[in-house]
Amino acid sequence: MELSWEESVTYSINTIYLLFSAYLVFVMQLGFAMLCAGSVRAKNALNIMLTNVVDAVVGSISYYLFGFAFAFGDGSNSNPFIGTSYFALSNVPNSTYDYSFFLFQWAFAIAVAGITSGSIAERTQFSSYLVFSFFLSGFVYPIVAHWVWSSSGWLCPSSSQLLFGSGAIDFAGSGVVHLVGGIAGLWGSLIEGPRVGRFDAYGKPVQMRGHNAALVVLGTFLLWFGWFGFNPGSFGKIVVGYPGTTDQGNWTAVGRTAVTTSLAGSTAGIVTLFGRRLLVGHWDALDVCNGLLGGFVAITSGCSVVEPWAAIVCGFVSAWVLIGFNILALKLNFDDPLEATQLHGGCGAWGLIFTGLFAKEEFIIQAYDSGKLGVSRPSGLLMGGGWGLLGAQVVELLVIVGWVSVTMGPLFYGLHKLGILRISADEEIAGLDVSSHGGYAYTAHPEEHHPRFYGDYVRMQNQDH
Amino acid sequence: MELSWEESVTYSINTIYLLFSAYLVFVMQLGFAMLCAGSVRAKNALNIMLTNVVDAVVGSISYYLFGFAFAFGDGSNSNPFIGTSYFALSNVPNSTYDYSFFLFQWAFAIAVAGITSGSIAERTQFSSYLVFSFFLSGFVYPIVAHWVWSSSGWLCPSSSQLLFGSGAIDFAGSGVVHLVGGIAGLWGSLIEGPRVGRFDAYGKPVQMRGHNAALVVLGTFLLWFGWFGFNPGSFGKIVVGYPGTTDQGNWTAVGRTAVTTSLAGSTAGIVTLFGRRLLVGHWDALDVCNGLLGGFVAITSGCSVVEPWAAIVCGFVSAWVLIGFNILALKLNFDDPLEATQLHGGCGAWGLIFTGLFAKEEFIIQAYDSGKLGVSRPSGLLMGGGWGLLGAQVVELLVIVGWVSVTMGPLFYGLHKLGILRISADEEIAGLDVSSHGGYAYTAHPEEHHPRFYGDYVRMQNQDH
Amino acid sequence: MELSWEESVTYSINTIYLLFSAYLVFVMQLGFAMLCAGSVRAKNALNIMLTNVVDAVVGSISYYLFGFAFAFGDGSNSNPFIGTSYFALSNVPNSTYDYSFFLFQWAFAIAVAGITSGSIAERTQFSSYLVFSFFLSGFVYPIVAHWVWSSSGWLCPSSSQLLFGSGAIDFAGSGVVHLVGGIAGLWGSLIEGPRVGRFDAYGKPVQMRGHNAALVVLGTFLLWFGWFGFNPGSFGKIVVGYPGTTDQGNWTAVGRTAVTTSLAGSTAGIVTLFGRRLLVGHWDALDVCNGLLGGFVAITSGCSVVEPWAAIVCGFVSAWVLIGFNILALKLNFDDPLEATQLHGGCGAWGLIFTGLFAKEEFIIQAYDSGKLGVSRPSGLLMGGGWGLLGAQVVELLVIVGWVSVTMGPLFYGLHKLGILRISADEEIAGLDVSSHGGYAYTAHPEEHHPRFYGDYVRMQNQDH
Repeated sequence: MELSWEESVTYSINTIYLLFSAYLVFVMQLGFAMLCAGSVRAKNALNIMLTNVVDAVVGSISYYLFGFAFAFGDGSNSNPFIGTSYFALSNVPNSTYDYSFFLFQWAFAIAVAGITSGSIAERTQFSSYLVFSFFLSGFVYPIVAHWVWSSSGWLCPSSSQLLFGSGAIDFAGSGVVHLVGGIAGLWGSLIEGPRVGRFDAYGKPVQMRGHNAALVVLGTFLLWFGWFGFNPGSFGKIVVGYPGTTDQGNWTAVGRTAVTTSLAGSTAGIVTLFGRRLLVGHWDALDVCNGLLGGFVAITSGCSVVEPWAAIVCGFVSAWVLIGFNILALKLNFDDPLEATQLHGGCGAWGLIFTGLFAKEEFIIQAYDSGKLGVSRPSGLLMGGGWGLLGAQVVELLVIVGWVSVTMGPLFYGLHKLGILRISADEEIAGLDVSSHGGYAYTAHPEEHHPRFYGDYVRMQNQDH
Repeated sequence: MELSWEESVTYSINTIYLLFSAYLVFVMQLGFAMLCAGSVRAKNALNIMLTNVVDAVVGSISYYLFGFAFAFGDGSNSNPFIGTSYFALSNVPNSTYDYSFFLFQWAFAIAVAGITSGSIAERTQFSSYLVFSFFLSGFVYPIVAHWVWSSSGWLCPSSSQLLFGSGAIDFAGSGVVHLVGGIAGLWGSLIEGPRVGRFDAYGKPVQMRGHNAALVVLGTFLLWFGWFGFNPGSFGKIVVGYPGTTDQGNWTAVGRTAVTTSLAGSTAGIVTLFGRRLLVGHWDALDVCNGLLGGFVAITSGCSVVEPWAAIVCGFVSAWVLIGFNILALKLNFDDPLEATQLHGGCGAWGLIFTGLFAKEEFIIQAYDSGKLGVSRPSGLLMGGGWGLLGAQVVELLVIVGWVSVTMGPLFYGLHKLGILRISADEEIAGLDVSSHGGYAYTAHPEEHHPRFYGDYVRMQNQDH
Repeated sequence: MELSWEESVTYSINTIYLLFSAYLVFVMQLGFAMLCAGSVRAKNALNIMLTNVVDAVVGSISYYLFGFAFAFGDGSNSNPFIGTSYFALSNVPNSTYDYSFFLFQWAFAIAVAGITSGSIAERTQFSSYLVFSFFLSGFVYPIVAHWVWSSSGWLCPSSSQLLFGSGAIDFAGSGVVHLVGGIAGLWGSLIEGPRVGRFDAYGKPVQMRGHNAALVVLGTFLLWFGWFGFNPGSFGKIVVGYPGTTDQGNWTAVGRTAVTTSLAGSTAGIVTLFGRRLLVGHWDALDVCNGLLGGFVAITSGCSVVEPWAAIVCGFVSAWVLIGFNILALKLNFDDPLEATQLHGGCGAWGLIFTGLFAKEEFIIQAYDSGKLGVSRPSGLLMGGGWGLLGAQVVELLVIVGWVSVTMGPLFYGLHKLGILRISADEEIAGLDVSSHGGYAYTAHPEEHHPRFYGDYVRMQNQDH
């Protein structure tokens, strides 16, 4: 059998769509790096940027060697818990997976550790970071991805045996990516404890502002840009027409997904703007950035299966979820420098529930059955779709919390007991950059402090000639 | 009727092209944020970045609810002045508009307020900013877009009744986007007046340099990157072959548009580099950035309908337009911190005229009639195309100046009279960030000021153990 | 003959693929600007960012006028050394080259001068920079591109007369782009000599840290992002099916190229992380960034023709190449502020050799013969492909070193002899920004140094009312 022009065209279009989406998802790594750098104190900026670079480079190798295999390795002996083939891309490309799919999934994998790096920022030993990052993106995360996204996974809505007749719908990973990263961050920051000076002797929080808001805004916009790859790109293929229509197909749903994503984030941003204005009395740009990101995290699960108006509901609630968890964290003297637990964990969990409430049957069938006619699917409880989907969503939420807790909890605890998790208080006060990375992120050169003097100096020298 | 594979392919290709172009246009919002932040003083950086975030999040909701409807709502009862259907995306997608088109237009809409935010920077109350941004991107701008870009609009070159037998050619919006934003900025900065200390008692300007040139260069390059979506993306569809050719179609014209865009900006940048060198005696990077952007603004109207050599003419003149308006602004003690009035207003206006002089008939027919054979169109005056097009361009210029003046002028004046437009002089001296946004964009932490001392401190502590 | 829908579709897909790749390559210019700015001292940041902007704007015009013609001008009178048609895009578009191809190549051309700008940073007169940039990107580089990439070029693996029956394989330009830029930088920094104070009286190096690591990380990630256009985009066309397969074509190879690129860079980054940890005792983020980039530079030649595992080998060696050349440079008191000679020159040269060792015949045939059946090609020496390819690679390496040396060496030497190459020591101490560009990149405003005082001041003022 030979390849026809028609097949070449279909493959080419789908590859362009998936590869350029993957490139956008990759930009999120830069977005995280900038967001994190701007949100910590200057003395730790180099450290946290290095963790983000390391997530990418270590993640590339670990995901190539075994992460992808654990997640999508559905060979003949496929099982619902872990993939077992395609190690080091052996037998890839094949009729199911091309390199572009690997690259797209790789960009997702490196993002997970980036989320958690924020939770344990400003106080973690770099060598422990390497261990944690390798374990999370190479093992813990791929297994969850297998459950939900691989057709042999036990939670997958495309599996042959659907949980509760439905399977869990976590289209681009409110649970698989964000909740996983957030719960890992929860354990990390719980076990490490708050930064030195974060709470005073009476348990009252002391503000520790990030050092550079321009980097925060840069990171936020880059994440928004990257999310256009993350969510709309998760269809995997775009050349899929829907039967019974004259002009709709995955291209319609891809566009709708970009719209729901932007609307959810925007609503969350606006609600946070006004909500925080009421609570703290000023218009805070950094809160708006975090609110916005919380809305993106929440819509990530249901982005492809809800109406635009529902995305607005999603964003509205997610803003309050984040505000609420942030208040709670302060009350409990819990210190996550980037609010990653609250944001990716809290809004990620809300995203799973939201999908169980608002998913529309027609859109589920588009996203998971290529719009096939005559199919029926459980859908959102509030859309009259029964309890099946919501049940599966709650199960996904619970097992993710459980799985990440039983894997990452002991890992962080073990590193803690070995005394290699947290840096010393002295090093923390001095800052990680100077204690572990050979110098500060920003170097002031003495001559620049006195431009006028040096101008004079230059002028004097010139007069001598 | 069923959807064929051929139709799926065509829809898929056009959607990829339009969606990824929309993502690039979205990057311009980040570009504006960085450009603006770097061009103001550090004490107002947080404020202006928040205005850019707010343009995006508020614009998302207002454009979804009614902005898109005002611009493109051509229902059965279509009229040439304002659209009246598709509120909150009802009946979208339809045979004319898919979600991808909405997303592309949304990215344009949020850019408009971003332009004006520069003009009124460093002295505007944030609550007034919210009112202005909502009104401009939700009402004033969409109506101009309707006139020029909606097939029922009275200035549209695809309408059934062509103004002067031509209609105005403003392909990606030198007028619709940039002139609108610039004129709004003109009224805002006129009514607010110059920043405290911008002109001394004798009316002599006092330089107020932006605080961070790296952000300016970052913003400029991101805007260039985004302009590759803005201009080449404005064809809307790429799978359009031109009859009578063997290998040309919109793909050719899309590429040519990217080339004219780059050439116009580059020429303007070079001319500004040498022009300013002659005028002020040094090589100024920031001037080159603004010159470059002025060239992009000017070519935005005619980018698809002129030859590459004409784009060089466009950029050459636009550099002098900007230099001239900047000299004039200083003479008149007019203070627009980002030169947005001069740049987006001045070069935008020149762009409309330029198109009336240099547009090539063949390319107009490609852009507006899919290259149909046997069609004739008025084209640029200097290309032998008569006065019809130039007349329509001048009309577009005048009505935009008029419309934005009668809407935004009274709005700014009303806010001014209510005393809520401008902050107090005390707040202005202290900076908006600390007075309205809870703190500075950049936080210096005391321990970082004395790295050597703290290094010693750590060493001392370690010796104790 | 008329254009069919099938042709329109093929042209559209290929154009989208190439144009969006070109946009990504363009982002590399921003990446270089940020990387360079962060790697120099604050007093020269504005200068180096301006050189990057100038590379783009001057390069646009020179590449349009004649650079493209020298590189790809294969008219009827084609010759193997220099192209002679298509000046100022005359007769473009044609059946071989559309505007999208020009834009892609333009983005490559402006990158070359950006590489060299790093080598001569912090001490070069701006007017000399203009001369050098114009000459390098308009003449020296296009001619090398002609040899290797134009079908009439004497080194080209698609030419009718293959050197050693093979031609040199430099898919995206480890040699054509990076080695050219690196050797130009070698001569520039050799002739200019080290920065004032870089080596003490005993020849011992004095560290001169860049002023802003956040810009370095930002630049590095942006370059990675851009490399997804540089390498995978270099196929030029994506709708090319491979005979004898049922699902493979350029889309497969494009994805594989993105994977090999990421793996090589990542491996180099990891090896540098641990290698430098052993050598200097801390985890250095900036070294990792440079290591990563060295891996990208090295894989750029063979990215499309090697297996993913071989890319790991490529990255592993390239990390040590860079580490080795950096040690050597210090020993020889050679000062290249961005390590551009070592990185782009050293790893670029290694990349050419690597391809001669590890290129796989099947993939060469895919990349250069559209996977045609029955073709045979010399391939990597270690893959059993004989000495033909390796020989051609060595020839490419040597002629590039020779050609760039005999052109750029005299140019730099001439400027040096004329006394216009390097700034005076006084200006160098003061910094280029204040001596040549009218002011510093960063402006501190006095009132911001005493926020508390000014807060008090504001409060006092308010009490008066």
